[in-house]
Amino acid sequence: MEGTKRMAIIATKGTLDWVYPPLILASTAAALGYDVQVFCTFYGLQLLRKDLSGIKISPLANPAMPMPVPMPVMVQALPGMEAMATMMMKNKMKAKGVASVEELRGLCLEAGVKFIACQMTVDLFDFQPSDFIDGIEFGGATTFLGFAGDSDISLYI
Amino acid sequence: MEGTKRMAIIATKGTLDWVYPPLILASTAAALGYDVQVFCTFYGLQLLRKDLSGIKISPLANPAMPMPVPMPVMVQALPGMEAMATMMMKNKMKAKGVASVEELRGLCLEAGVKFIACQMTVDLFDFQPSDFIDGIEFGGATTFLGFAGDSDISLYI
Amino acid sequence: MEGTKRMAIIATKGTLDWVYPPLILASTAAALGYDVQVFCTFYGLQLLRKDLSGIKISPLANPAMPMPVPMPVMVQALPGMEAMATMMMKNKMKAKGVASVEELRGLCLEAGVKFIACQMTVDLFDFQPSDFIDGIEFGGATTFLGFAGDSDISLYI
Repeated sequence: MEGTKRMAIIATKGTLDWVYPPLILASTAAALGYDVQVFCTFYGLQLLRKDLSGIKISPLANPAMPMPVPMPVMVQALPGMEAMATMMMKNKMKAKGVASVEELRGLCLEAGVKFIACQMTVDLFDFQPSDFIDGIEFGGATTFLGFAGDSDISLYI
Repeated sequence: MEGTKRMAIIATKGTLDWVYPPLILASTAAALGYDVQVFCTFYGLQLLRKDLSGIKISPLANPAMPMPVPMPVMVQALPGMEAMATMMMKNKMKAKGVASVEELRGLCLEAGVKFIACQMTVDLFDFQPSDFIDGIEFGGATTFLGFAGDSDISLYI
Repeated sequence: MEGTKRMAIIATKGTLDWVYPPLILASTAAALGYDVQVFCTFYGLQLLRKDLSGIKISPLANPAMPMPVPMPVMVQALPGMEAMATMMMKNKMKAKGVASVEELRGLCLEAGVKFIACQMTVDLFDFQPSDFIDGIEFGGATTFLGFAGDSDISLYI
């Protein structure tokens, strides 16, 4: 309609499965010429950390996830199962040629996607500015609305 | 503005509670004359399977769900509780006259809702094209953005 | 473009973390002059109850949540951990100066945010009209679409 299209994303999740959608949508949209902003809040702040090792998958929270080997719920709650499910998921992604979280985040940054960390949740979870990668901004709901209000696509992930 | 309204949905969840919102919104919008596309990815692929029996509810993942009988968290993790919670939910829905997932999906298809399976997650979870119902398409983030970029409503569910 | 901007929110979650985003976004948008409607369905009905004590946090459902003290998954499933995690989260929010759910809901109501309870899920969970605060409306997917179809921002939370 009026030149460049815009997409605004709120990224709120920090598990291995749910960090993918904002990164895939943001990098794809940027490649298509969209102006993209990703506002990271709550567990979505994990996306902006230098250390991405806190991103895991919980077998318990996803009853619909087809696991390579069926496991009863109690076994899923045993110590170590979270780490094992995370490793299995990462291996599967690698085998299928899916890019890592770090690679996708790099693609987004190169393509000009702007990442904003929610100041309120940064404070709430006691994160330090030095925990995050360079080149991001800090803001609040007003920051998000200022961009989203004129966007073609707004998604809460 | 320009004739037909459009709604783009990304359906990412595969539990009994969360498969309802995309189907209810899509069928209602289609009935109101909207052009609707539902892009199914991650656990949302469950929506497109011929076999819908993988759609369950997890009592653990929903602390805010009012259960007919209060249960401590440990009991919710016992073997069999997932199946029992699913059965209880299905019975309650039936008693309240809520349509089944299969019925709602049928309504969507009849009303012209277009379903798209995310090729990347189809590959990731080792699904076969024969696992899915007929009449769907396969695509990626570009497919979604191509429709969503000109939609009146875009929702990530 | 055409005067007042509009934001449509579907609030579907009822845990302590996920009731905040709709309330913060709605109150901020209303303060900026937006016309805002929040359609509450499934566990999002918790937002509209007079009694907000059902809003808890589940340590199990959020593997990405940085807990003050690391706990193995089994310990998180022990009886009492849900209540303890909820108390810890509430204390932390208070210490950081984050408004309570009740305060934020009050701000929304004062600013003219319209709350709509999904009649289908009200029936499904056997809620009574007297369970909810005054001043809300009841409706269905058609109600939501009627507003969202002409909104600048639509979010499914």
